Amino acid sequence: MIYFDNSSTTKALKEIIDTFVTVNEQYWANPSSIHEFGHQTDELLQSARKQVADVLKTVDEKVYFTSGGTESNNLAIFGLANKYKHRGNHVLISAIEHPSIIEAAKMLQKQGFIVELIPVNKEGYIKLEELDSLLRHDTVLVSVMHVNNETGAIQPINEIASLIKSKSRAVFHMDAVQSFGKMVVNFDEQYVDAITISSHKIHGLKGSGLLALKSTIEITPILFGGGQESGVRSGTTPVPLSVCTAKAIRIANANLNTHMESILKMSEEVTTFLKKFSSIKIISPEIKAPHIVSFSVRGVKGEVFINALQKEDVIVSTSSACSSKQTQTSHVLKAMHLEDDYIKGVIRLSFSYMNTPEEVQQFKRIFTKVMNVIKGD
Amino acid sequence: MIYFDNSSTTKALKEIIDTFVTVNEQYWANPSSIHEFGHQTDELLQSARKQVADVLKTVDEKVYFTSGGTESNNLAIFGLANKYKHRGNHVLISAIEHPSIIEAAKMLQKQGFIVELIPVNKEGYIKLEELDSLLRHDTVLVSVMHVNNETGAIQPINEIASLIKSKSRAVFHMDAVQSFGKMVVNFDEQYVDAITISSHKIHGLKGSGLLALKSTIEITPILFGGGQESGVRSGTTPVPLSVCTAKAIRIANANLNTHMESILKMSEEVTTFLKKFSSIKIISPEIKAPHIVSFSVRGVKGEVFINALQKEDVIVSTSSACSSKQTQTSHVLKAMHLEDDYIKGVIRLSFSYMNTPEEVQQFKRIFTKVMNVIKGD
Repeated sequence: MIYFDNSSTTKALKEIIDTFVTVNEQYWANPSSIHEFGHQTDELLQSARKQVADVLKTVDEKVYFTSGGTESNNLAIFGLANKYKHRGNHVLISAIEHPSIIEAAKMLQKQGFIVELIPVNKEGYIKLEELDSLLRHDTVLVSVMHVNNETGAIQPINEIASLIKSKSRAVFHMDAVQSFGKMVVNFDEQYVDAITISSHKIHGLKGSGLLALKSTIEITPILFGGGQESGVRSGTTPVPLSVCTAKAIRIANANLNTHMESILKMSEEVTTFLKKFSSIKIISPEIKAPHIVSFSVRGVKGEVFINALQKEDVIVSTSSACSSKQTQTSHVLKAMHLEDDYIKGVIRLSFSYMNTPEEVQQFKRIFTKVMNVIKGD
Repeated sequence: MIYFDNSSTTKALKEIIDTFVTVNEQYWANPSSIHEFGHQTDELLQSARKQVADVLKTVDEKVYFTSGGTESNNLAIFGLANKYKHRGNHVLISAIEHPSIIEAAKMLQKQGFIVELIPVNKEGYIKLEELDSLLRHDTVLVSVMHVNNETGAIQPINEIASLIKSKSRAVFHMDAVQSFGKMVVNFDEQYVDAITISSHKIHGLKGSGLLALKSTIEITPILFGGGQESGVRSGTTPVPLSVCTAKAIRIANANLNTHMESILKMSEEVTTFLKKFSSIKIISPEIKAPHIVSFSVRGVKGEVFINALQKEDVIVSTSSACSSKQTQTSHVLKAMHLEDDYIKGVIRLSFSYMNTPEEVQQFKRIFTKVMNVIKGD
């Protein structure tokens, strides 16, 4: 199987699964228990938290383990907006956010906040002049994804953050689900106040992730109960999952340059190859994450290619897994005003360092064959 | 190590960890992906859901996998109250619920609902006559735990449910975190509309659980995004965890009688043993779950015993893990009006079928020694 759908999910590393097994065998106490076994388990949890804080360059007590990207994004939207609502009730998100930001923000609007969308240009980058005019003195929260999951577009986070900080008192949340582990993410330098990371997108385990905050930022919870995770995320903290999240983050961070280089080579080769077809339009813009190559074949539905490729054991995706079962057109591509000729034909390739140059060569052969059959091209 | 703290958490079964590893190795796709690998993974997820639905005797589409008991309880409180708020804004919970119900209900109150507590008697059972007078025509939700986590008290669920159904249109949620797998839980017969189960309390994995509803009951989500789990619980469903939740439930259900019998023998022997000490008061009432024995030593802090026992490698707990790090007195014991002499001295033993009669014998020897040292008793 050639798996080029790593933005949907990745295969967990063997060493991470091994760690999961070991922690379940040796440190399976409830970390809130006051007995020694509980303490030992809690110490392991706190060391995992410290590892994450070290990578992200924030303080330990602002790292909150969650059940994944969606919970972290929901926590950021509801938790930050509500924490700072004394400053105002205006919230900005980009028009191309992940559904876990968009749908949470819609709910926030029902609760009395004013939510506005920051439009993007044809390449899928936020229009800074529009952000400039949308920012208000009562804007309390801005949420922008670092890398778009459908196109790979990298948002100009530094410029966005500077603009936000110069024009408002808003807290800035960045959804880094598609960027962390794929490119440099400087949480400490980028004026970002809050960051979401999902484990299963970086060869960690499904059902785990985190939200981290800068040391001065506060947040209200969305899950209530025993007051775990400094009161921000109730529920018995699942130590085996949290330790594996920390491990996935450490591994991704330690090997970033090597991983980036290998992914970049593969995606550049594929892009050069695809550009040769006259009916293909590359959707991914210039400044993009190395692992995503989004393109469209004029006049052919993306599903047709996905099915044809999968018969040859090549796994690719339409725009995203989250929206792939829904029949409506991608809100990202609509916001980019992609032409009708192309909007239904989008295919997303997303690479991992686990992919190989040989797989890329094989893909090129198979894709050429499929194009011949489908387009006679 | 003698681990008598199975109500805080249990050790995951080897066969469940094995399943987790296998699913991560073989079915690690995103179940929302439209390619074949995604379909196969989704089929595995749906078969896990069906297994749970079969055990609980409800329909597949009303089984929602969550990150655990706290999320399930929060989903029940917010999701059911909001779904049925057109019927009214009155909510009842018992005074001895888990913090994940109590704190969620407090939040619900801030959002405009009227929340009232159903008091319990000295044994920790809900006062039915009080429930009767608290129920109103505009009561939309009642939430009562099946088994109390601190005392083991079994609530008279059938009587409670009948009363609710005869006097109101309220939906009835039952937190079965401490009952499922320890005693008979008849979700289909008990007029219960919604049920919470946590995996790590039944030798499953931490960070997973579920909320299940009767076929006619609807609910609004608390996490928003890609619309997974029939729109009720967004976020990439973690198939390995969900499959393991289903497995933990199947195993617990299939071996219930054997497990109950072995647990009952151990807890009865310990109770008989403890009753011999004049300074000990058994807190657990007559009608209680077999696995919990709560008692108090007059005039000695529970922590003193926990520390002394742990030096002998015996792990027990104060009232609960969730409240054990908090300094305030247990709300459960306060609601039961436990005498001051005893309220600080509570120790909870909680058994699993993994414990052995030999461990009980050893516990009796060690406890006698510790009592001699501490109380000279």
